[in-house]
Amino acid sequence: MTKPYGKLVGVSLGPGDPGLITRRAWDALCSGARWIYPVSRAGEKSYALSIVERAGLSVPAGAVELVFPMTRDALALDEAWMLAAGRTAALLAEGTDVVFLVEGDASTFATFGHLARVVRERLPDVNVETIPGVSSFAAAAAATGRTLAEEGETLAVIPAAYGVGAIDHLLDGFDTLVLLKVKPMLDEIIDLLERRGLLADSCFIEKVGAPDERVVHDVASLRGKAVNYLSLMLVRRAEHQRNEDRRAGSARKER
Amino acid sequence: MTKPYGKLVGVSLGPGDPGLITRRAWDALCSGARWIYPVSRAGEKSYALSIVERAGLSVPAGAVELVFPMTRDALALDEAWMLAAGRTAALLAEGTDVVFLVEGDASTFATFGHLARVVRERLPDVNVETIPGVSSFAAAAAATGRTLAEEGETLAVIPAAYGVGAIDHLLDGFDTLVLLKVKPMLDEIIDLLERRGLLADSCFIEKVGAPDERVVHDVASLRGKAVNYLSLMLVRRAEHQRNEDRRAGSARKER
Repeated sequence: MTKPYGKLVGVSLGPGDPGLITRRAWDALCSGARWIYPVSRAGEKSYALSIVERAGLSVPAGAVELVFPMTRDALALDEAWMLAAGRTAALLAEGTDVVFLVEGDASTFATFGHLARVVRERLPDVNVETIPGVSSFAAAAAATGRTLAEEGETLAVIPAAYGVGAIDHLLDGFDTLVLLKVKPMLDEIIDLLERRGLLADSCFIEKVGAPDERVVHDVASLRGKAVNYLSLMLVRRAEHQRNEDRRAGSARKER
Repeated sequence: MTKPYGKLVGVSLGPGDPGLITRRAWDALCSGARWIYPVSRAGEKSYALSIVERAGLSVPAGAVELVFPMTRDALALDEAWMLAAGRTAALLAEGTDVVFLVEGDASTFATFGHLARVVRERLPDVNVETIPGVSSFAAAAAATGRTLAEEGETLAVIPAAYGVGAIDHLLDGFDTLVLLKVKPMLDEIIDLLERRGLLADSCFIEKVGAPDERVVHDVASLRGKAVNYLSLMLVRRAEHQRNEDRRAGSARKER
């Protein structure tokens, strides 16, 4: 009889504040399972790992670093994914439970879904569990004292890379727009928000929950400035504007 | 000198699984602050309270129930809100810290934002804090083993009440669509998903994380059936469809 596979668990840690680790994630971290955690380069600091370290947990012996490079080079990415999945599958095949540390929520713009899929291609019978967590945008809304959405409203979350045309269009249909990874697009977005009179309705949040978290309400002040990769913007149109659109047909509205 | 106001804290409890309460929320619950919790009718069971009870916490003496009726009667709603805000403000004015128990995330389709605003109208200097939490849709994605969004994708979250026309339109532009409060619209939505060939890409989740959680992958089987108010649907279009749209211009695409 072959040894049963270990279970693969995506453990969401929330976006940075160690207080936002859930009780279930905490138990999984302390369960004696093997830890694996992502880095963008070999030997580099892992942001996910830094969250649990700030929570006061020490990294158990045998924790494994997996490299997920930030590159658009398809070949390099493929190779990295194959290595990561192979390493994970090998640990699971030993019968070890493996917890994969994920910043934010494991189902929301995270690598865990893809990792689990690639691992399943190798070990079709492996048991995969996801422990959900607090998303960066929920934490950003809380940090700024803003609402993401109230009863009957609409919310869209998109990577800023979709471009100002797409953002401009979505601003018509949604009460709140969350723009992720604004770094390379920041000036263009600020111009758009100014053009549309939405600067006062916008807020920039960098590394939410980390010791160097930064909340900027005067987003125009960020023009030309360098910001961290872990940054997002919340745009929530003032109520009277939203009400006007709602009367005009809301999410269906075309320009 | 007047006594300083207590602090108003929105404590997100996650959508139902007591394991999804964060460490910070747990500390706030155990801080000795006064608890207030929402019910939809006087003396009725509070869903938020049931989560902390299932977590093994006992309700402290002096916990206060606030009634937020489920009605469209503007006068009744206004009156209920005024009562709730008045009661909260009175407690805060005594110098007591008050934690308001919120199911899911306090910034995401919750009553807390509005309550805080109305309380602030009475006590402009009051200190308000929000402890973010796991949203129902993040937990639903985890429970079904689905991804809400992967790198470079788009996500929209809307109340199903926007109607099938709006949903139909948004399905063109978004990789994943979360439909909240599907109960009164369920049959219409199922018809739309069938028409668009999206039944296999859809999933229904009721009371996620509660002991009577229900996940239905065969959503067509729900036609004509009664479902709970706390239910949502995830619609995630198959990758090949999304890729086709992406090539055609993605979120910008118009029909």
